[in-house]
Amino acid sequence: MLDAELDSLAGRLGDGVLVTGEETMERYSHDDAEWAPYGRPVAVVRARSTDDVAQTVRWCAEHRVPLVPRGAGTGLSGGANAVEGCVVLSLERMTEVLEVNTAERYAVVQPGVVNDDLRARVATDGLWYPPDPASSPWSTIGGNVATNAGGICCVKYGVTGDYVLALEVVTAQGEVVRVGRRTAKGVVGYDLCALLVGSEGTLGVVTEITVRLRHLRAPERTVAGYFDSLTDAGRAVAALSEAGVIPSALELVDRYCLEAVDAWKHMGLSVDANAVLLGRTDAAGEAGDLEARLMADCFEKGGASFVGISSDEQEAEALFAARRLAYPAVERLGPVLTEDVCVPTAHVPEMLGRIERAAAAHDVHIANIAHAGDGNLHPLIIAKPGDDDAQERAKAAFAEIIEDAIALGGTVTGEHGVGILKRAGAAKELDPGAIAWQRAIKQALDPHGILNPGKAIP
Amino acid sequence: MLDAELDSLAGRLGDGVLVTGEETMERYSHDDAEWAPYGRPVAVVRARSTDDVAQTVRWCAEHRVPLVPRGAGTGLSGGANAVEGCVVLSLERMTEVLEVNTAERYAVVQPGVVNDDLRARVATDGLWYPPDPASSPWSTIGGNVATNAGGICCVKYGVTGDYVLALEVVTAQGEVVRVGRRTAKGVVGYDLCALLVGSEGTLGVVTEITVRLRHLRAPERTVAGYFDSLTDAGRAVAALSEAGVIPSALELVDRYCLEAVDAWKHMGLSVDANAVLLGRTDAAGEAGDLEARLMADCFEKGGASFVGISSDEQEAEALFAARRLAYPAVERLGPVLTEDVCVPTAHVPEMLGRIERAAAAHDVHIANIAHAGDGNLHPLIIAKPGDDDAQERAKAAFAEIIEDAIALGGTVTGEHGVGILKRAGAAKELDPGAIAWQRAIKQALDPHGILNPGKAIP
Repeated sequence: MLDAELDSLAGRLGDGVLVTGEETMERYSHDDAEWAPYGRPVAVVRARSTDDVAQTVRWCAEHRVPLVPRGAGTGLSGGANAVEGCVVLSLERMTEVLEVNTAERYAVVQPGVVNDDLRARVATDGLWYPPDPASSPWSTIGGNVATNAGGICCVKYGVTGDYVLALEVVTAQGEVVRVGRRTAKGVVGYDLCALLVGSEGTLGVVTEITVRLRHLRAPERTVAGYFDSLTDAGRAVAALSEAGVIPSALELVDRYCLEAVDAWKHMGLSVDANAVLLGRTDAAGEAGDLEARLMADCFEKGGASFVGISSDEQEAEALFAARRLAYPAVERLGPVLTEDVCVPTAHVPEMLGRIERAAAAHDVHIANIAHAGDGNLHPLIIAKPGDDDAQERAKAAFAEIIEDAIALGGTVTGEHGVGILKRAGAAKELDPGAIAWQRAIKQALDPHGILNPGKAIP
Repeated sequence: MLDAELDSLAGRLGDGVLVTGEETMERYSHDDAEWAPYGRPVAVVRARSTDDVAQTVRWCAEHRVPLVPRGAGTGLSGGANAVEGCVVLSLERMTEVLEVNTAERYAVVQPGVVNDDLRARVATDGLWYPPDPASSPWSTIGGNVATNAGGICCVKYGVTGDYVLALEVVTAQGEVVRVGRRTAKGVVGYDLCALLVGSEGTLGVVTEITVRLRHLRAPERTVAGYFDSLTDAGRAVAALSEAGVIPSALELVDRYCLEAVDAWKHMGLSVDANAVLLGRTDAAGEAGDLEARLMADCFEKGGASFVGISSDEQEAEALFAARRLAYPAVERLGPVLTEDVCVPTAHVPEMLGRIERAAAAHDVHIANIAHAGDGNLHPLIIAKPGDDDAQERAKAAFAEIIEDAIALGGTVTGEHGVGILKRAGAAKELDPGAIAWQRAIKQALDPHGILNPGKAIP
């Protein structure tokens, strides 16, 4: 019965939009989150237009079939994982940049535009789209909006949500609605844009995004610091925050990650340190010199064994490229459970220490990358492939790190989203009243619960 | 019957918290919006604590009595106006700054803290709270949050919502709920903080606010430009945006406003121009010199009759003080209907021209102040006291300006909020689907509609 109905939807969508082949369905049925459960969809719709999306949502609403929207599937919390019997709705074919307005500094894009592609496109007009998750070569603006993605530049420039001005969204009833504005300011009604950003496709499907842009900035200077231990590096981070320096990037990578990248990409990274901090400043002229100097001082205060200020872009770029490649490089070597805790910067050294203790207590290896400047840590819990016991120990370490982050006044997810993997942690972190509000809003906007059920809300 | 019940609430709140004296009730029954209707409250509660607020909301919920929360009452849209038979809940006595955290750069405050007081308090720690509505000597952080207030520095530094990290809120059921976080980043669940900011007390009563702070910045340089006409000044604004300069302030004041301030405060402002643009840059060192020079060039391009770059803080401060005092100075002379339209900066000259045409068409005087840099214009429609016909003409001009702003891709309210006065305009501006979402959210969180009914939502 449903099959016939699916055929009628397929007919309305046009050739090749609705797919039911096993291989395609498997490929579209999960994101990049390790060990997050996923079900089997009844179909995958690869929408080319807002109308395709509206048709699909209306069909799902009519047949009470769950709908799971997705971008590139680079998520790390299972937010895009299929639920049993759902339609997976991929937005990756909606890749048009519809407008770039240089005077008002905004761009209007379809959700499938890849993050790096947007950055490159607006750079030709002297403009800059700041949010830069490590997945930026693959992840889409739509996916970034769904998870309120962060990135490397966020320590100074904020996250995706800070750049979303307006959205076109298909509601759970299949209606196309516009929210937000294109003016610099505007307070007419509730901020529905902000409500949708980070809602992981549970309130509506975003089909067009108006993003705020900045002017391209001055070239950055890089300060690298090598440390014997993670906690030393953590102390340097806290010292920087205490000193009032706001770098344009402040990333941490440990030896394990650097070696994993080198083994994969043969970049010739020969870093003799257990932890490396990569700081950047984009302040122009003398102010930049001063900031770089202050950063170096703080690295030394943290106990760095070596500190170098570089204006050699190539060398600096190699280190940052290694930082960006760290996750896929480590993932190559086997299953990785990725944390995304965020703690007050003063607690970064303590949190890094606790992560090391969790690794020891549960007998797992934990590698570390971090957006250290905003306290957003990504311990990568590594299990040997096929070792079921190691998998259980990794999950136990995962749970312990989440408890530790909450105990230090932190959050279980700085930028990846709740998805499936962080629901239990979110339940511990959030005020029960805040969870009740989320459920009430979800119920009000999606009364039949068809939009990405079982995600985001604890 | 309700009287006896009110007595029991009064008893629970303690001495002097619940007031029913006629004079007090009149004073608390409206904000600063001209000709916005207001009703007669049954009582005014001047809360001293979150518990006072929770008791009051629970009482209102139980007796289905509408509740109108308010700060200092400096609003210009009628958002704090009493509805007939309501309890007015004033937060102005909750004035404690509970914490200033210099390392993480945030402050935790009660809602009654006055905006300027917070700025002065954190400045002693080298920190800065940017949002600076012209009402900053009187308006409260709670009121600023309720309206998502803007101000002079917003062109570069954003609005109140950009600085709200966390809130404690009393729900329509009288429960105390915490939303938001204290870390630099965090995406756990829907952004309820952003939903509450600008919701004008219709979803909950905010009883504690955690605001993000910045470091104090470099001293500003001021560039003043005198223009023969508003549209010339508007052209300078558009030129500046086109040139990619983001000033730390860009304010417009017309001759009428400057003269009104001078007549009141005798500041000896002798400006021979029909419109004055006041630009500022807080870029340090050479970058600041360059920005000031670019700004001056753009003013000249707009047709300025005089341009001066000043590092004389006293002279510049006098001009900015005049800008801040313009509204009360004009209001002193009689009833003023205040617009708050915001248009794309490229359309600022066209919008200023349309405002002049609306004044001519409806035979009213319209004075102008504006946060010109973000296209947020405050035409002040002036009617002679007691002239009923002038009042009607003023209202007609008000409606026409709103239509013009929408036609130019703008919004009816850049920073004052919808309140009562902008509901009709909001209905024209917003997508019907977005209005439906607002109603659904309101219904979900305040099913009996007791919180500030008749406000904010068209």
